[in-house]
Amino acid sequence: MKEKIAAYIEQVRNCNPLVHHITNYVSANDCATITLAVGASPIMADAIEEIEEITAHSSALVLNIGTVTNRTLASMLAAGKTANENHLPIIFDPVGVGISTLRKNAATSILSEIKPAVLRGNYSEIGFLAGNSSQGKGVDSSANIPTQPEIENTCLLLAQRYQCVVAATGPIDVVSDGTKIISSENGHPMLRNLTGTGCMCASLIGSFCGAVKSPFEATIAALLTMNIAGEIAFEHAGYKGNGSFRVALFDAVSQLNSATITERAVLDETKC
Amino acid sequence: MKEKIAAYIEQVRNCNPLVHHITNYVSANDCATITLAVGASPIMADAIEEIEEITAHSSALVLNIGTVTNRTLASMLAAGKTANENHLPIIFDPVGVGISTLRKNAATSILSEIKPAVLRGNYSEIGFLAGNSSQGKGVDSSANIPTQPEIENTCLLLAQRYQCVVAATGPIDVVSDGTKIISSENGHPMLRNLTGTGCMCASLIGSFCGAVKSPFEATIAALLTMNIAGEIAFEHAGYKGNGSFRVALFDAVSQLNSATITERAVLDETKC
Amino acid sequence: MKEKIAAYIEQVRNCNPLVHHITNYVSANDCATITLAVGASPIMADAIEEIEEITAHSSALVLNIGTVTNRTLASMLAAGKTANENHLPIIFDPVGVGISTLRKNAATSILSEIKPAVLRGNYSEIGFLAGNSSQGKGVDSSANIPTQPEIENTCLLLAQRYQCVVAATGPIDVVSDGTKIISSENGHPMLRNLTGTGCMCASLIGSFCGAVKSPFEATIAALLTMNIAGEIAFEHAGYKGNGSFRVALFDAVSQLNSATITERAVLDETKC
Repeated sequence: MKEKIAAYIEQVRNCNPLVHHITNYVSANDCATITLAVGASPIMADAIEEIEEITAHSSALVLNIGTVTNRTLASMLAAGKTANENHLPIIFDPVGVGISTLRKNAATSILSEIKPAVLRGNYSEIGFLAGNSSQGKGVDSSANIPTQPEIENTCLLLAQRYQCVVAATGPIDVVSDGTKIISSENGHPMLRNLTGTGCMCASLIGSFCGAVKSPFEATIAALLTMNIAGEIAFEHAGYKGNGSFRVALFDAVSQLNSATITERAVLDETKC
Repeated sequence: MKEKIAAYIEQVRNCNPLVHHITNYVSANDCATITLAVGASPIMADAIEEIEEITAHSSALVLNIGTVTNRTLASMLAAGKTANENHLPIIFDPVGVGISTLRKNAATSILSEIKPAVLRGNYSEIGFLAGNSSQGKGVDSSANIPTQPEIENTCLLLAQRYQCVVAATGPIDVVSDGTKIISSENGHPMLRNLTGTGCMCASLIGSFCGAVKSPFEATIAALLTMNIAGEIAFEHAGYKGNGSFRVALFDAVSQLNSATITERAVLDETKC
Repeated sequence: MKEKIAAYIEQVRNCNPLVHHITNYVSANDCATITLAVGASPIMADAIEEIEEITAHSSALVLNIGTVTNRTLASMLAAGKTANENHLPIIFDPVGVGISTLRKNAATSILSEIKPAVLRGNYSEIGFLAGNSSQGKGVDSSANIPTQPEIENTCLLLAQRYQCVVAATGPIDVVSDGTKIISSENGHPMLRNLTGTGCMCASLIGSFCGAVKSPFEATIAALLTMNIAGEIAFEHAGYKGNGSFRVALFDAVSQLNSATITERAVLDETKC
């Protein structure tokens, strides 16, 4: 499976899918940057008047509630419906869903009115959606880290409930499609010191989903891309500090190829 | 002509013009960064209540419809009228004009109610405004690349129609004031791998227009600045990847001087 | 005093305070980045529906009027009231207060309806709030630089008027709590070539205020962090240009420790 998934990065670079983002203003630039680095094309647009036209011409749609307002939630719902009608994959990133009623209600609306292909969050966001009481601290870190069996069960349960792929990112990334569960130990703790790494994961998932048929495999490929790039970035520049590490992360994504992914990927496929 | 235009970068650094931007939230930081790197001062403000005061105290106005909404369009029109009344140069960047009715209508409103000094877009945006059917893919790349005579004619035609300078940026940059046409082969393909390079070009044009009388010459100087900085950035850091290339681009703009521009500029002035 | 203040950076890294920002879209990413670099956790949120919940769970609140609108001003006022009720420190950054009536009125509303712990601005912003006529140029630079006694008096006066700590940043940073005045010559002129350094100072002040009891000492520690990081960044990468300097600044903040602060801090404590 590793070789098959590793090869998808070349598929993204060949297809150059257009990835429509309705996202927050904090990490929008990083999301556009990483989308270009992996070989896809980003477009950020949230005015409801243009949402349907733009989604209809895209290959994937990323919805991120990082700085959601009622205005942009309406745009997300309209874009999501267009994407569903056009059978385009939707990646939903419930940023900080546990920290406010607005975000909880936004996530509820999105998950009841739209059918995402992939739901991606950190452990506390995924746990919150599954009904666990743990609450994250801010949007860049997570507290009360669950055990691996716990997070695997949570992903499986949510994937069955919403009939989509669920990815929980953290020290170990877990992905489930409701039947299979796969996990990966790749990555580096320093990724948590950067803002927007979760949002960037969602952009990468959108990029791979825009070029690859299986959202399950696309998601695994996207997370391997982020995590292996993080490992390489740490080796090249981690000792210098956060600024250099971020630059090296974008370098690594833009230079990553299937051979390096195959060589470095650590996947636990025992539940596949 | 080359020496004259190359010298303008020192004029920008001496004048330190204030450049008011009403722009998108994706590349706003990059635009502020490059404006400072070339020696001008950026101000981003889009609340209609303060638009007229801020424009009136500025040296140039950049309007960019990258994430335009009805709210910010109204601010652009108000700011544009103030700029016209105060004889301040307006740079209009019709980002993604071909991808939605909202953006098409926004561009139509701006071009009918305001008189820009410079209209800058990529090949597909400029082509769309001229009535060509080609449509861009996203906002960072362009498809159906026209021949150089085609894009030259398109710029000339649009410059005559709107009585302003028109700049089409792409593999070869073309600038026309409705009579003269100039083109430049400077630049590097890797610039297309960065987000916001088009927006940053508009910021540079605004910076030069704020310090130099002729919008035609200011535009050429701004595009040379971007493209030569791109060449230098590639030589220094291109092999490392997208992240390092972007850092090196800002380095190169901040260190560029007239001597280097004169040495590297490749201008075709045969139609001047 | 120097050792005591220098030690606060380890306190921030241990406490990892959550710092809620209602801020502009230009430097939001930089603010999140520097907050993480110093060891705190950022959250940016401005929808009025979620403001009170998020502020109540935070350790400090940063209000920045850089691209304020009536919508976000209402959110700032609501968040500020929640913070005051919960005895959380508020850092108010009156970006560009002198450049429009909207911003002047926003600052007046904030300062009359909310009690900030720290008011931070550049010389022209602080001067404007004190009733001086000098007006800044844009938001990244300042003109008509006052003498050190003048800016010290201005800070003292404002600190007494608003019963809070006032910090004026510029060639020499001045901080007053209404009784004591402290100043520091640390820093590097190249910091003025970067966008958002003022906003980032406010984020650092928020990070320190979230972990340290005294807003006066927290503010001094935050400004030393920024300025000493600027010095180190210049030594490492200043000669390369603006892009590398910015990367090195984030590196330096993320690697700074109390020993380096103690070694490099230049504080004038004669008025303490």
